Amino acid sequence: MLVSSREIHRGKVVHLFEDTVVLPNGNTTTLDMIRHPGAAAVVPFLDARTILLVRQFRHAAGGNLLEIPAGKLDPGEPPEACAARETEEEAGYRAGRLVRLGAILTTPGFTDEIIHLYAGFDLVPVPSRLEADECLTVETFAFADALALVDRGEIQDAKTISALLLAARHWPPA
Amino acid sequence: MLVSSREIHRGKVVHLFEDTVVLPNGNTTTLDMIRHPGAAAVVPFLDARTILLVRQFRHAAGGNLLEIPAGKLDPGEPPEACAARETEEEAGYRAGRLVRLGAILTTPGFTDEIIHLYAGFDLVPVPSRLEADECLTVETFAFADALALVDRGEIQDAKTISALLLAARHWPPA
Repeated sequence: MLVSSREIHRGKVVHLFEDTVVLPNGNTTTLDMIRHPGAAAVVPFLDARTILLVRQFRHAAGGNLLEIPAGKLDPGEPPEACAARETEEEAGYRAGRLVRLGAILTTPGFTDEIIHLYAGFDLVPVPSRLEADECLTVETFAFADALALVDRGEIQDAKTISALLLAARHWPPA
Repeated sequence: MLVSSREIHRGKVVHLFEDTVVLPNGNTTTLDMIRHPGAAAVVPFLDARTILLVRQFRHAAGGNLLEIPAGKLDPGEPPEACAARETEEEAGYRAGRLVRLGAILTTPGFTDEIIHLYAGFDLVPVPSRLEADECLTVETFAFADALALVDRGEIQDAKTISALLLAARHWPPA
């Protein structure tokens, strides 16, 4: 049960609070809590055997990561609309059809961030539109090869691992 | 390239900095960055078909989540030692053998947190030791049933989804 919440920092991404909480065991504690608007991410399928990934500079990782296209929800934006928008902006494709794969809580020890996961099909090229602080390139992979990168630990981003492995359960690569 | 780093908050879990960075495209930007010691998590296999999960109160999720046992690395602690320790403390079992499944970057847009993932085998019961702010119970699941909870979206924790699906690729349930 939330007793009180004190704002510590409001940054571009991180909105940090220190919450005072009564736990189910009756103990009272304080917890760092990052409130996040939520996000959506998409595995874009060019065809049944081929997907797109973005190779993106991530300061937190000290280099580039292979990820699926993703981004934060705009205020009031439904997750599926965000997924469609990010597929256009980052990958440069409009998805004719989005299939929901699930959702992940990225790290529930200190944030309420949820990322809604989709697979995108029936892709049509559109101009991509990157923001000034986005540094990424779009790359094509055989779906089976992307899964091999997951198995070998060469893809480490949690939303990407989760979405690729969930997609593989729906549509096992030939 | 990191230009400068300003500490904003040092909490029990969240150690927040505002970093000034030159991006690969030459733009300079500021980024919220949570530096994290890293963590380890384990899928404890009671036998080839049966695993343990913990049902844990998570303030950020507004209730209980089904997760694999996990915890932060102590200073200098190797990930595998942390995985073994957390399996004892949270699940109440000593793992005779740990097999590495991979690692996830939980949410690289704002933290360097990495969670090392393992499967634990040859379990022997030991007394569990919970901390004052841990509220959890240990539950037994058929591995196939836990995977069905992932497929149905009833498990949402990213490390748990990633570890269960990676384990299923190594050891598909009968």
